[in-house]
Amino acid sequence: MRVKFPLMAIGLEVAMIVLFKLFVHYGNDQNTIQVNSTSKPNVTDSFLELYPFFQDVHVMIFVGFGFLMTFLKKYSFSSVGFSFFIAALGLQWATLIQGLLHSGGRKFDISIKNVINADLSTATVLISFGAVLGKTSPIQMLIMTILEITVFASNEYLVGEIFKASDIGASMTIHAFGAYFGLAVAGILYHSDLTWKHHNKESYHSDLFAMIGTLFLWIFWPSFNSALADTGQKQYRAMVNTYFSLAACVLTSYASSSLAENRGKLNMVHIQNATLAGGVAVGACADMNINPYGSMVIGSIAGIISVIGFKLLTPFFATTLRIQDTCGVHNLHGLPGIVGGLASIVAIAMGVSDTSSMAMQAAALGSSIGTAVVGGLITGLILRLPIWEQPSDWDCYDDSVYWEVLYSVLQRNPGQQCECGNHNQLKPED
Amino acid sequence: MRVKFPLMAIGLEVAMIVLFKLFVHYGNDQNTIQVNSTSKPNVTDSFLELYPFFQDVHVMIFVGFGFLMTFLKKYSFSSVGFSFFIAALGLQWATLIQGLLHSGGRKFDISIKNVINADLSTATVLISFGAVLGKTSPIQMLIMTILEITVFASNEYLVGEIFKASDIGASMTIHAFGAYFGLAVAGILYHSDLTWKHHNKESYHSDLFAMIGTLFLWIFWPSFNSALADTGQKQYRAMVNTYFSLAACVLTSYASSSLAENRGKLNMVHIQNATLAGGVAVGACADMNINPYGSMVIGSIAGIISVIGFKLLTPFFATTLRIQDTCGVHNLHGLPGIVGGLASIVAIAMGVSDTSSMAMQAAALGSSIGTAVVGGLITGLILRLPIWEQPSDWDCYDDSVYWEVLYSVLQRNPGQQCECGNHNQLKPED
Amino acid sequence: MRVKFPLMAIGLEVAMIVLFKLFVHYGNDQNTIQVNSTSKPNVTDSFLELYPFFQDVHVMIFVGFGFLMTFLKKYSFSSVGFSFFIAALGLQWATLIQGLLHSGGRKFDISIKNVINADLSTATVLISFGAVLGKTSPIQMLIMTILEITVFASNEYLVGEIFKASDIGASMTIHAFGAYFGLAVAGILYHSDLTWKHHNKESYHSDLFAMIGTLFLWIFWPSFNSALADTGQKQYRAMVNTYFSLAACVLTSYASSSLAENRGKLNMVHIQNATLAGGVAVGACADMNINPYGSMVIGSIAGIISVIGFKLLTPFFATTLRIQDTCGVHNLHGLPGIVGGLASIVAIAMGVSDTSSMAMQAAALGSSIGTAVVGGLITGLILRLPIWEQPSDWDCYDDSVYWEVLYSVLQRNPGQQCECGNHNQLKPED
Repeated sequence: MRVKFPLMAIGLEVAMIVLFKLFVHYGNDQNTIQVNSTSKPNVTDSFLELYPFFQDVHVMIFVGFGFLMTFLKKYSFSSVGFSFFIAALGLQWATLIQGLLHSGGRKFDISIKNVINADLSTATVLISFGAVLGKTSPIQMLIMTILEITVFASNEYLVGEIFKASDIGASMTIHAFGAYFGLAVAGILYHSDLTWKHHNKESYHSDLFAMIGTLFLWIFWPSFNSALADTGQKQYRAMVNTYFSLAACVLTSYASSSLAENRGKLNMVHIQNATLAGGVAVGACADMNINPYGSMVIGSIAGIISVIGFKLLTPFFATTLRIQDTCGVHNLHGLPGIVGGLASIVAIAMGVSDTSSMAMQAAALGSSIGTAVVGGLITGLILRLPIWEQPSDWDCYDDSVYWEVLYSVLQRNPGQQCECGNHNQLKPED
Repeated sequence: MRVKFPLMAIGLEVAMIVLFKLFVHYGNDQNTIQVNSTSKPNVTDSFLELYPFFQDVHVMIFVGFGFLMTFLKKYSFSSVGFSFFIAALGLQWATLIQGLLHSGGRKFDISIKNVINADLSTATVLISFGAVLGKTSPIQMLIMTILEITVFASNEYLVGEIFKASDIGASMTIHAFGAYFGLAVAGILYHSDLTWKHHNKESYHSDLFAMIGTLFLWIFWPSFNSALADTGQKQYRAMVNTYFSLAACVLTSYASSSLAENRGKLNMVHIQNATLAGGVAVGACADMNINPYGSMVIGSIAGIISVIGFKLLTPFFATTLRIQDTCGVHNLHGLPGIVGGLASIVAIAMGVSDTSSMAMQAAALGSSIGTAVVGGLITGLILRLPIWEQPSDWDCYDDSVYWEVLYSVLQRNPGQQCECGNHNQLKPED
Repeated sequence: MRVKFPLMAIGLEVAMIVLFKLFVHYGNDQNTIQVNSTSKPNVTDSFLELYPFFQDVHVMIFVGFGFLMTFLKKYSFSSVGFSFFIAALGLQWATLIQGLLHSGGRKFDISIKNVINADLSTATVLISFGAVLGKTSPIQMLIMTILEITVFASNEYLVGEIFKASDIGASMTIHAFGAYFGLAVAGILYHSDLTWKHHNKESYHSDLFAMIGTLFLWIFWPSFNSALADTGQKQYRAMVNTYFSLAACVLTSYASSSLAENRGKLNMVHIQNATLAGGVAVGACADMNINPYGSMVIGSIAGIISVIGFKLLTPFFATTLRIQDTCGVHNLHGLPGIVGGLASIVAIAMGVSDTSSMAMQAAALGSSIGTAVVGGLITGLILRLPIWEQPSDWDCYDDSVYWEVLYSVLQRNPGQQCECGNHNQLKPED
C-alpha cells in the first residue's frame, strides 16, 4: 500500500482529467436549441425525465453493492470502501471508453444516458469484486477496474451494435459477464490455505448491514432494468416485469432456502442474494411482451436455481475447481444471467419480441461469457504479478491490513483489562 | 418449518402465476394509443410521472417497515426477513384482489396506480406484523398476509366505492385497520409467559438499525400520502401538509418523550415511532384545504398522543387486556389513525372539503376498525390451530428458531474461550 | 433536560403554528389557474418536476447528515436523534424566515422551491452541529437552530439579492457558513478537559453506520447542487459537474488518506468525509460552463485539501486555537467551501459565466465567513449562559446523559455475570 496505491490513484485521476479535456464536453447544440426553440431542448428534457432513474441506479451501485458485501464480519470497511473506490474510478473510465467507442474516437457529448451507462458499467466490476472479495489488494482492484471496464465496453458494443441483440436489463452483458470475469480472476488468484480462516464468516450485525444492500438493490431493480428502455410501452413493461419477477423470486428463494437447510431454517446468505436473482434473470427480456405471469415464472426459477447454486455449486467450485467465490456471485449473477439469456431466446421463439433473433441472443450470451472468461484469465495473470501486493493467505478477509482499525475492546475499556490475557491478541471485534 | 412453510410458499407462488395468467395483462390499448396518436399515451405518461412516487413508497415498504422492526436485539433477521417475505407475497395477492374487485372479476390492466396500490396494501399486513412480532411463525405470517389483504381490499372497496369517503393517505383504511387487525390477532395468540423474556429488548445497535427504518419512513411519507392524489392542487397539498405535519410531530414527540421519562431523558422507542404519527394522522385530510398550520396542529397532537399511548396504554394492553403489542403499533398506527379519521370529520365540518360528508367519514372510520377487529379475531382463531407451528413462549423473540445464526462469540475466537464456562450457552450476541 | 427542553420545544411549536397561520398559505391562484386554463398550472407543474430533487435532498438531510455523525461509538443516538430534531425544527423556522424575507414581511405562498430551500437551510445547522457534536445539550441545539437559521437567511438574502452572487450549490452560503459558525460556537464552548475522554472514538460498527450517511450524501449531492438551478442547460450542467467532481474527489481522497497514514493504510474518517468535499467545492460554480474536466480538477483538489485538513489542521485547532471540531466540519465544509468560492472567482475570470462578477463572488465569500464567525461568536456566548444545561466534561460524548440506554451487557445475560467485577461500571457497549 505504502506509495504504489496512492500514486497510481492520483496518476489515473490526472490521466482522466486530461482525457476528459480532450474528448468530453457538454455540447453547444443544447445551448443553441435552447435559445432558438420555444420548446425545451431534447437533451435536458430527457435529463429531467430520466434523472429519477439515474438516482435509483446510483443508489444501487453505491449503497446496494457496497453494503451487500459487508456481510464479512472483519472485512466490512473494505467491502463498502473499496466498492466506493471502484465505482468512482470505474464511472469515469466507463464514460470515456463507452463514449469513444460510440463516437468512433471523436469528441462526444455527455447526456443523461451516458451517465446512467457509466454507473451501470461499474456494476460489472463490483460483481467481479464480489468473487475475489477479501483476497485482493486495492491496487489489484484498481487495475481490474480499468481492464474489466475496457473488456466490458467492447463486449457490450459487440452485443448491442454488431449483434443488435436485446438485453435491456443486461442479464448477459453485465451480470453473466461480471460473474464469469470474476470467477476467472478468482481461479487464477487461488489461495490454497483459506479453509481454516474463521474471518471468512458473517456476524449478526454484518448480516444486517448486508440486508441494507440487498433491499436497496431489490427496491430499485425495476429502475435498473428500465432506465435505458425506449420511453413508453417498453419502459413500462420493463418496470412491471421486473417488479413481479422479483416478488415471485422472493417466495421461491425463501422456500428453497428452508428446504436446503437443516430443520427447515432459513439461511441469510440465500435471503441476501437469491431474492435478487429474479431481477437478473428477467433482465434480457424485461421489455418484451412476456406478460406479468411470464416474468413471475422467470423470477421463480431464478430464485430456486440461485439457492441450489449456493448449496451445491459454491462448495464444488471452492474445492474441486479451486475457484473461491466469496460472495457467491455465480449464484446471484452468473446462473441467473444465463437463465436470462435463455429466457430471452425462449421469448423470441414464442414470438413476443421482434427486436432480435434467437441466434443473435445466443451469440450475445456466448460472447458475454467467452469474453468474460478470457478477459478474466488474462486480468488474473496480470494481477498475479508479484508487484501488486496481493495479500497473503493470513491477511485475507482482514480489514486491519488496509485500514486503521481501532482495537475497540481494549480501547473501550482501557482500565478494565479482562483476566484472560489472550484478549490482547484480539483482532477488532465486530 | 421443515416442509410446511416451503411447500405452502411454492404452492402459493404457483397459484399466483396461474391467476396472473388468467386475469392480469398489460393492456393492448396502450400499444394502440401509442401507434395511433402523436402524443404519448396516457398510461405510460402517468407511469413516468408517478414512478418516483412509486419508488418512494417502495423504499418505505421494504426498507422502512423492514428496518423499523429490527429494534429487537435477537429478532432482527426475522424482522427484516419476514417483512420482506410478507411484502413480496402481499403485493402479488393485492394486485389480484384489488384488480378483480375493481374490474368486477374480469381481466384487468396493470397501471402504475395498481402497482402503487399493491405496495400500499402490504403496509396493512406489515403494521399487523408489528403487533405480533416475535410471537408467530413464518407460516402464520403467510396465512395472515393472504387473509388480511383480502379483508383489507374489501373494506377499502367499501370505503372508497360505496361510502365514497375521503382517505387519501389511508389513515383509516391502512393504519387504523392494520393496527386493530394486528391487535385482535395478538389478543387471540396471547402468550402467558413472556414477561421474564429478556430477549424482548433492544440493544444499542439494533436501535440504530431501527432508526434507518424510521427515517426512510419519515422522509418518504409525503409521497405515501400524495402518490394517489389527483394531480395538481390536491397532490401538491397532500405533499405539503404531510411535510409540515411530520415536522411538527417531531417536536411534540421529543417533548412528550422527555416529559414521560425519568429525569427528562429521551426514549428511543418514542423517537422511532411517535415521530411518524404525524404522517398517519394527517393522512385522511392530507389533500384537503386544511392549510399548513392546520396540518401542524394535527401532527402536534398525534405526536403527543402517540407517546402517551406508549407510556400508558401499551402496558395496560399487555397486562389487563392480555394483548401484547410488540412494536406498539396501536400508538403509531391505531390512535393516530383514529385521530386522522376524526380530523377529516372536523375538516369537513369546517368546510374545507366537499369530497365527502361527515357521516361517510364516520362510516369509513367505523367500518375500518370494525372490519379489522372482526377480521383479526377470525384470523387469530385460524392461526391458533395447532398445525401452524406457533412458537412456544421460550422460542419467542429468537431468530435462531427460524434462521441459521452463527454463535459468533465462539466462532469468532475459537481458540480463546473465556474462563466463564457458561459462555457456551450464549445465544448469538447482538 | 427535565422540563426546560420539552417546554421550549412545545412553546416553539405553538409559536410556529401561530406564525404559519398568519403568514403561510397555499395560494388561491393555483386553484384559479387550474380551473381556467387547459394546461396544468405552473406551481403544481414544477412541483412534480422538482419533487424527485426534493426527495433526494430530504434523504441527504435526514439520513445523510444524521448517520454521517453516528461514528462516535457512544453518541450515535444523539447524533441521529438530535439531527432529526434540529432538521424538523429548522425547516419550519426556515420556511417562515426565508418566506418573510422574500415577501417583505407579507403573507406568502408555499411552492416546491420553498420546501427545498427549507430543507437546504437546515444543512447549515447540521454542519455546525458537527463541530460541537457531543459537547452540547438539546436545549443548546434548539437555541442554535433558531439563531443560526436567522443569521443564515439574512446572509443568503444579502448574497443572493444584494450581491447577486452565484452560488447554486451553496458552497459559501451553506457549507462555509455552517462550518465557521460551528467553529466559532465550538471555540466559545471550549471544554478544557476532554483529551482523556476515550468515548470520543469510533467503533467498527459505528463507522459502518456513518458510511450509510456518507454514501447517501455522496449519491444525492448532484441533486443538492442542481435542485434550484434554472431548468434546462444550467440544471443539467450542475448535475453533471457535481457527478464528476465527486468521482474525482474519491480517488484523491483515498490516495491522500493512504499517503497520510502509517504504512499507507486508509483512515475511515477521511473516507467518510473527504470524499464529499468535491460536492462542496464544485457547488458555487456547478451551473457554470466549467466543463466536466474542470469540475474534476476542483473535486481532486478538494479531496486532497480535506485530508490535509484532517491530518494537520484539526489537531492544531484543538490544541493551539482551543477549538474542538468533533466531526472535522472545517475539513469537509469549511475549506472546501472556500475552495468553492475561489473556484467561482477563477471561473468568472476565465469567462465561463456572466451571471456574477468576481468582486461580488469575493463579497459573497467574505460575507458568508464574516457573518458566520460573528453570528457564531454571539450564539456561543448566549449558549454559554449557565441556564442551558451544557454537559460537563465528564458527560460529553455520552448518550446515556440524554437517552434511556440499556446497559446491554448486563441485561443481555443477566445470569452470566463476568468474573471481572468491574464490568458493573460499564457504560452501554457499542
